[in-house]
Amino acid sequence: MHIRKQRLLTPGPTPLYPPALHAMMASDIHHRTEEFRSIYKSALADLKEVYGTSNDVLCFAASGTGAMDASVSNLFSRGDKVIVCAAGKFGERWVSIAKAYGLNATVLDAAYGDVVTPERLEAALQAEPGVKGVFVQASDTSTGAEHDIRAMAALVKPTDAIFVVDGITGMGTMELDVDGWGIDVLVGGSQKAFMIPPGLAFVSVSPKAWAHAAKADLPHFYFDFKKEKKSGDAGESTWTPATSLILALAESLKYVKRVGMANVIANAQLLASATRDACKELDLDLFATRPGSSVTAVKAPAGMDSGLIVKGLKQFGSVITNGQGSMKGQIFRLAHIGYFDIIDMFGMVAALEIVLRANGHQVELGKGVAAVQRAYEAARKA
Amino acid sequence: MHIRKQRLLTPGPTPLYPPALHAMMASDIHHRTEEFRSIYKSALADLKEVYGTSNDVLCFAASGTGAMDASVSNLFSRGDKVIVCAAGKFGERWVSIAKAYGLNATVLDAAYGDVVTPERLEAALQAEPGVKGVFVQASDTSTGAEHDIRAMAALVKPTDAIFVVDGITGMGTMELDVDGWGIDVLVGGSQKAFMIPPGLAFVSVSPKAWAHAAKADLPHFYFDFKKEKKSGDAGESTWTPATSLILALAESLKYVKRVGMANVIANAQLLASATRDACKELDLDLFATRPGSSVTAVKAPAGMDSGLIVKGLKQFGSVITNGQGSMKGQIFRLAHIGYFDIIDMFGMVAALEIVLRANGHQVELGKGVAAVQRAYEAARKA
Repeated sequence: MHIRKQRLLTPGPTPLYPPALHAMMASDIHHRTEEFRSIYKSALADLKEVYGTSNDVLCFAASGTGAMDASVSNLFSRGDKVIVCAAGKFGERWVSIAKAYGLNATVLDAAYGDVVTPERLEAALQAEPGVKGVFVQASDTSTGAEHDIRAMAALVKPTDAIFVVDGITGMGTMELDVDGWGIDVLVGGSQKAFMIPPGLAFVSVSPKAWAHAAKADLPHFYFDFKKEKKSGDAGESTWTPATSLILALAESLKYVKRVGMANVIANAQLLASATRDACKELDLDLFATRPGSSVTAVKAPAGMDSGLIVKGLKQFGSVITNGQGSMKGQIFRLAHIGYFDIIDMFGMVAALEIVLRANGHQVELGKGVAAVQRAYEAARKA
Repeated sequence: MHIRKQRLLTPGPTPLYPPALHAMMASDIHHRTEEFRSIYKSALADLKEVYGTSNDVLCFAASGTGAMDASVSNLFSRGDKVIVCAAGKFGERWVSIAKAYGLNATVLDAAYGDVVTPERLEAALQAEPGVKGVFVQASDTSTGAEHDIRAMAALVKPTDAIFVVDGITGMGTMELDVDGWGIDVLVGGSQKAFMIPPGLAFVSVSPKAWAHAAKADLPHFYFDFKKEKKSGDAGESTWTPATSLILALAESLKYVKRVGMANVIANAQLLASATRDACKELDLDLFATRPGSSVTAVKAPAGMDSGLIVKGLKQFGSVITNGQGSMKGQIFRLAHIGYFDIIDMFGMVAALEIVLRANGHQVELGKGVAAVQRAYEAARKA
């Protein structure tokens, strides 16, 4: 047995930013003190800056699904007509939440790997007058596919509907111009581009969404947008905050601001595009028709169970993800979101080459790595 | 600016074993309690097991040089005749310590990159009767060269001299059979194969060395072998121990035992041999005539300052080391000792290829990485 470092190469939790982890060690702090209040206040301000919006941004002690739930329970009424664009396991989650709260949902679904086109949304909006909301994933982590959020936002903007985007893996890997495009609600999660462990969920709320909130009648208690905004404006959280994670967030947001959100996005996009180049060199097909940059879903070579690739990487100590649900065994997913750098890709692709060869796929060693190297060189020259 | 992870790729401090770091968080512990005593006791027992010796192994709150100093001040008398085999900056350190304590030292020095051969030691031992000690580095970190400790030990064993080996970077990268070969004193340091931060130094003491200690008259106070042995036998340290580092050590020793010291050595040797293969593919010459496995010292291509390579790696966030003293600008050093794995080498060599190209050296991308991949495949099959 050789030394094998554990490497978390998954699209969330993503690798963690070490100084943020270290900051968690200062958690012997009380949340109702001036000391914590000033940290919380500045973290919320930085969060808003990283969101790049003038809308309110709220923070909850919850996983991302909590903020998805809250975006339904705070902004809609029982029986409201909504459109859900579902192109993967996370799209299906919007459907489940809408159903749980008794919304009247029209589901536009796409086959796994595919996306819902703006054209389909346009047709649905025309066919269904009185729609109150449109739900979508910026990118669906289960398939690695990315929606055309800009075009979709433009379709929703002139209607009475609010545009609710799950940006949990989209944020930090693609442009999401909240104010410019008209994203009324953008959901984020701490364990993604924020590079810290799971446990915090974020949501931005536009004036149009607040107007919806004023008329909404669905029951909710813990997740209360109005209360949370009022608390946040005073530098407080409504309920006990997850202090360790807030300390981590404060630190990671400083880092994201220092790098620049545009560069964090460019970083993920470089790693994703380099990985696609490597896949081409290694005769591997991509799964998504419109691949995003949070994660690259790759089809296992014909006749090879993708679980063998996951298992092979595990022998190096590296954790990558298999497909979910019916995609299990068919695809494997290489992540780029969050605290990943090009050296991670060199290592990941070099290990992947060895695993593919060990499972009978024809691979010339170093060929995929060279593609990643070339992509890096080209980006550096640009 | 892209995301660039800080990677410490130096031959000490080496990359740190995360669970050992986490254990340091439990440092709010008092050292004169049963709780700490039981941790200390079991760490000393594990240390002895990892040293693979029945000799006493002592632990000091000090850097490795502290234990080198202690090995002179505890075991010799003013004017004692000793032989110092010096083949690098660390060999020169033995010379300085011997001088500071007024020993009568015959220095066998080798040019940087070279080693002192057993033949030269044999001749010196024959030429100098009454030698009380022979000092050497198992491997000299400054040049990456490794001495033939086994052959040297066999020469010293039948004499009255004790064989004092600085194994600070040798341990965990080469076989060092303390009892079998007759290494009377073996010095180790926490920031090397022990994978934790600097601050602890270790030393094993043979019965022959204890007999020397009984007759030694050099002054010392903090570093007191006899006191420390007595303390250690009672599960105590003589002076206040560096508790955080002891907690880390206890954790890392569990890991080294789990992996197996022989495998830790095999790991470093695989990484070193893979790196040498990569250098060959990249038309790079090695600096050491007898390269060890703690660090590979590589000559910069003709006309290229090795500082450019160090600087280039820094642009990836990776820290590698330049040459020291007169070797500065001539060589760069790629480390393998401690918590390094093959994926680290994939990344390091891939980045190195890019840096070499950027500085005008002819490199086919991926060629060095492929050599590392092949070395790994071959080792896995073996």
